[in-house]
Amino acid sequence: MRMEAFTVDDIPLVKPGDDIAAMICERAALEDGDVLVIASTIIAKAENELFSLDDITPSDRAIGIGKKDDKDPRLVEAVLDRCSECFVESPVMLVQSDRAHVCINAGVDDSNVENDLLADLPRDADASARSIGERVEEITGCRVAVVVTDTNGRAFRLGQTGVAIGLYHATPIYYWRGTKDLFGYEMQISEEAVADEVAAAANLLMGEGSGGNPVVVVRGIPLFTEEKTSARQLYRPDNMDIIKKALRIFQES
Amino acid sequence: MRMEAFTVDDIPLVKPGDDIAAMICERAALEDGDVLVIASTIIAKAENELFSLDDITPSDRAIGIGKKDDKDPRLVEAVLDRCSECFVESPVMLVQSDRAHVCINAGVDDSNVENDLLADLPRDADASARSIGERVEEITGCRVAVVVTDTNGRAFRLGQTGVAIGLYHATPIYYWRGTKDLFGYEMQISEEAVADEVAAAANLLMGEGSGGNPVVVVRGIPLFTEEKTSARQLYRPDNMDIIKKALRIFQES
Repeated sequence: MRMEAFTVDDIPLVKPGDDIAAMICERAALEDGDVLVIASTIIAKAENELFSLDDITPSDRAIGIGKKDDKDPRLVEAVLDRCSECFVESPVMLVQSDRAHVCINAGVDDSNVENDLLADLPRDADASARSIGERVEEITGCRVAVVVTDTNGRAFRLGQTGVAIGLYHATPIYYWRGTKDLFGYEMQISEEAVADEVAAAANLLMGEGSGGNPVVVVRGIPLFTEEKTSARQLYRPDNMDIIKKALRIFQES
Repeated sequence: MRMEAFTVDDIPLVKPGDDIAAMICERAALEDGDVLVIASTIIAKAENELFSLDDITPSDRAIGIGKKDDKDPRLVEAVLDRCSECFVESPVMLVQSDRAHVCINAGVDDSNVENDLLADLPRDADASARSIGERVEEITGCRVAVVVTDTNGRAFRLGQTGVAIGLYHATPIYYWRGTKDLFGYEMQISEEAVADEVAAAANLLMGEGSGGNPVVVVRGIPLFTEEKTSARQLYRPDNMDIIKKALRIFQES
């Protein structure tokens, strides 16, 4: 089995209203079953999900957290505005983002945006993935899967990895259910977060900063599915999440 | 930029004492800079890190947890024996393993082992990676990186992904330190867990069960480093780990 992944080179700076699907199709020869992995930042720019700190008046709470975290209180206010729950305030803000899932700073990105603007996450990254995927199909006639990515830190481990926050025709989790193991025993159910693994693989090629490549094509793995899928299928339900429970009790203590 | 990953096919069932490096070199044409990604299970088998539940007498604590979790109390005892701290007992055992890091069941694997034996994690997966890497260099003359993998669940997200638990000449984390972003601003430090991303990418091809491929070669990314590296560089230090602190307080509550 062989997989390849390659960057779609020379994507220009994305501006509000840009047609990302067309930009990709002009620069890559796509095939049926390809997985298009797209960094959420360029989608946020195309969708004009940008804002300026100058328009934000920080609350007392934001000023307090800003002092503790040595962070601009207007940025803190922006994060508080974009989350339904703040699990950790300091030294970093770990929150339940309104637009994705649990992440640092509600996914607000202050790099690679012009004119002192900050990029939000896309409002609905599944919808962004669908819109780009359908447009790619329209232009090329190819059936593709789309994975919109962000980078997230992890519990217990250092560093960030690429994760999926929006899916279109991409399998989120593969269930090794009732498969036989090498000795014929039925395996216990095992769930592989394949969409996140694809996001991680693509992130190896995306890089950051001025040399960054926001679009990667992954070819050779059966991630494409005819089914309607959503990145929300990757999010652990609140009532099954022991770590969230522990963080809530920790915050009260 | 282009990366490829392919399975090393037809690796036979591994038995204690087997020379995994030779098995790989007979079946793949390796090149300088290749990353060999190897599932920890076959290393544990080659290193004879197998045990039988029949040799274990469960403690009262293990019997209690076994009842709560509907799990063989001898398996629970084996997990307790292999960890320095148990963060969550039920519905699954999330522990600080003696051999790797925080994981479910201390990494004990009850699939794909013969004769009712269970596989431990390798005793020192960095040492296993080094031993295989040096032997590959001896056989082929190629300088390769080696990543030994396990699969781990994640906080907040469903499903498991491949992670690195042993490294040889493989960069654990890439630091985007002081890089300029697209607009010339200096980026804040950002840490990318590249070894885990490679483990995740390879896990897409490894599969599970009888069709599993325990060895994958990843080519085209600059993971190889001349430096001595360790998977421990990926583990968040205890005193920096808010989630561990929260889990300890939660357990006492």
